Amino acid sequence: MQIAIALYDRFTALDAIGPYQTLGGIPGAEVVFVAGRTGPVPDDAGQLALVAGRTFDEVPHPDIVVVPGGPDQRDQMENEPLLDWLRAVDATTTWTTSVCTGSLALAAAGLLTGREATSHWLALEVLDGLGVRSTGQRVVFDGKYVTAAGVSSGIDMGLALVGRIAGDERAQSVQLLIEYDPQPPYDAGSPEKAPAHLVEMWRRETGLAAGAPAGS
Amino acid sequence: MQIAIALYDRFTALDAIGPYQTLGGIPGAEVVFVAGRTGPVPDDAGQLALVAGRTFDEVPHPDIVVVPGGPDQRDQMENEPLLDWLRAVDATTTWTTSVCTGSLALAAAGLLTGREATSHWLALEVLDGLGVRSTGQRVVFDGKYVTAAGVSSGIDMGLALVGRIAGDERAQSVQLLIEYDPQPPYDAGSPEKAPAHLVEMWRRETGLAAGAPAGS
Repeated sequence: MQIAIALYDRFTALDAIGPYQTLGGIPGAEVVFVAGRTGPVPDDAGQLALVAGRTFDEVPHPDIVVVPGGPDQRDQMENEPLLDWLRAVDATTTWTTSVCTGSLALAAAGLLTGREATSHWLALEVLDGLGVRSTGQRVVFDGKYVTAAGVSSGIDMGLALVGRIAGDERAQSVQLLIEYDPQPPYDAGSPEKAPAHLVEMWRRETGLAAGAPAGS
Repeated sequence: MQIAIALYDRFTALDAIGPYQTLGGIPGAEVVFVAGRTGPVPDDAGQLALVAGRTFDEVPHPDIVVVPGGPDQRDQMENEPLLDWLRAVDATTTWTTSVCTGSLALAAAGLLTGREATSHWLALEVLDGLGVRSTGQRVVFDGKYVTAAGVSSGIDMGLALVGRIAGDERAQSVQLLIEYDPQPPYDAGSPEKAPAHLVEMWRRETGLAAGAPAGS
């Protein structure tokens, strides 16, 4: 089973690593990081680079595709090489997935039209504008399309997919090995739970640029 | 404020990225990935490479050090360049931290002797054997030494540290922006919660090699 995680300049690191660290626990999984060109791909903060081992052309038939998000929606929505590849590989994937604003790429590629999906909380209106029915859920399954909310939600999505593909016990093993027993020191992880003035501040500061990075 | 995340062959990706994605939200933070040599450093599954931008010699005075773990404790405990660097930089750090079996490197460097600390649940006995008082807590503060449990716990540690350094509101903003509102589809994230037969299986399979990767 080949799992392809798409990279592009200014992607958000945890969006890619959450699914990687969980889906990689599927027995026999081969994970490839794929981009327009091989080599280091810088993240949204410009302080990290992940190495793409393959070009899009070299990965024509992945079983699972994962598209991470990034803070400037144009990086996904106007990324023609990425969108072309998504349209092509989607024809034969078993699962087509995204984390955070990665769903804007799937939507811009025309793959989510009329479907239920999610995205970073700051990007849900943009997603609606692309003919998608956004939900406030953390992980949304609609047929073979699986979308997750902002950044860290890719861990939850990955575990859910491991369960579907390899069974509950395998998913529980992955959760146990990554010791995913979350104990956040605050309860501010969603716009419904965070202090209202912080939610408003970030809505103002990010404007239409969805999914601002933690370092912004 | 310079934050140095140490890399070495066969590190676990999420151990490094959890703190990166949270500590990077400290205003003015400069994050550097540092290793024995610059360039790509392969992770424990050999399917991902993160780029080290600096050598240990080039980062003599970081304010915060983060040591990720990896599944074979020898990679940390017998890594003399890493241990030498940790001993040297610890003299001037504000915070010296680890995720997962990264604490075995801090302990092997002699920095945790007599202190309370934690590690991956599979490595707690090894930690005790190094003169450290292990606890079952997810994040342990002992003076300037902050250690986190397995893999995903680095997110919780990172948020706690952002709060200490930059205040509760900044930490809440980081949590909101990475949408860290965990909803794991299973409740198997610790040896106390996971099915007992899975805990026993992984204790047997990993033996003394602490902290097996999700992909093992």
